[in-house]
Amino acid sequence: MRVSELAEQTGVSVSTIKYYVREGLLPPGNRLGERRASYDQRHVARLRLLRALREVGGVSVSDLKTIVLAIDDESRTVHQMFGAAFDALTRSAAQPVTKESLRDADELVDRVGWTRVRSISPERRRLAEILQVIDSIGADIGPLRKTVYYELVDAIAALEVDRLDPLDPTADRDTLVRRMVVGQVLLGEFLLSLRRLAHEHHSASRSARPDGAAPAPPPDSSAKT
Amino acid sequence: MRVSELAEQTGVSVSTIKYYVREGLLPPGNRLGERRASYDQRHVARLRLLRALREVGGVSVSDLKTIVLAIDDESRTVHQMFGAAFDALTRSAAQPVTKESLRDADELVDRVGWTRVRSISPERRRLAEILQVIDSIGADIGPLRKTVYYELVDAIAALEVDRLDPLDPTADRDTLVRRMVVGQVLLGEFLLSLRRLAHEHHSASRSARPDGAAPAPPPDSSAKT
Repeated sequence: MRVSELAEQTGVSVSTIKYYVREGLLPPGNRLGERRASYDQRHVARLRLLRALREVGGVSVSDLKTIVLAIDDESRTVHQMFGAAFDALTRSAAQPVTKESLRDADELVDRVGWTRVRSISPERRRLAEILQVIDSIGADIGPLRKTVYYELVDAIAALEVDRLDPLDPTADRDTLVRRMVVGQVLLGEFLLSLRRLAHEHHSASRSARPDGAAPAPPPDSSAKT
Repeated sequence: MRVSELAEQTGVSVSTIKYYVREGLLPPGNRLGERRASYDQRHVARLRLLRALREVGGVSVSDLKTIVLAIDDESRTVHQMFGAAFDALTRSAAQPVTKESLRDADELVDRVGWTRVRSISPERRRLAEILQVIDSIGADIGPLRKTVYYELVDAIAALEVDRLDPLDPTADRDTLVRRMVVGQVLLGEFLLSLRRLAHEHHSASRSARPDGAAPAPPPDSSAKT
């Protein structure tokens, strides 16, 4: 198909398609003449992946490059390709992280029993940063740091990995990475959206008075009167 | 305290402090002279909140304004203030959402039983957008759309609301909103980070072979041999 048709089919503008080709994110089309090229279903699939990553995941162009390089370098094993794409999706720490926060994050990972997390995983640093900011604004999340909370997160992640991991040895590299990236980015957004809806529901259910400041007392406290 | 001391105590640069004052995000200090002003603990608390929202939550300046307006307008009830801040945290849909996707999202909310979600909640539209993108890239998340997944999300949100909702009628408006915003933004990042660590653990546990393409068969299939 021509570039105009490719743009129509994927909803990505011609100028963005040309930009992706220049940046090495999309393979060039087969040249048909001096100013014409032909594109196929592989271009469609790659553009749909790039569009989803950009628009829903907010993934930067530099992180798109890391992911695409990992897909296109066939000398990397699937496991290595996954590690590269996985790490590219970790948000980088925006500020210096203290040793105490790093130790705090490592202890948390140990306590929950996530023994297979690499010691060099950038996600440990990201978790340390988040714990540090939560501490610095004086938020009282202590009670959330109980085992049951981590067990719920673990159960959600296990369900997701069950569905999204490369259990299908016939799938190509593009498809494998797309599934993993979907798991990390799109399902992350899906999870956050569901969680916000659940927050609205539970918060409204508890706000008995119109100002929302004093919900009805829980059963055990009314039993005392 | 002087502006230089305020900058040191909060880690926010003097030029950013002045920008926040100009934008109405931070009240001006008490003027001590032509070019000097004095700041207090209220400024420290507000700056720490703004910094956390910017650096960890990635909240835009325009959304910061909506949140601060809701805090500072004392004619709004706590419930209204929460609604405004809550909605400001919803990511806006980047593309047109189809009627089918909107119906899909509404049906999902009904099915899980989140009956207190407002029909005008922008989060419904956000969920519809996410479902639409997941569909358009052909991701097979069907099996995740089972009740157990939603029940886990619901349990996590209920735990969070238990800790973060305004159960304390003595807290001031800044503190109430900060707790809610922390619940929405920082704990959302906390949850995603924990989930990524759990993904890495479960994914590595399943990848028995170095190429990660074919994990060891589950116990029930080996029992058949």
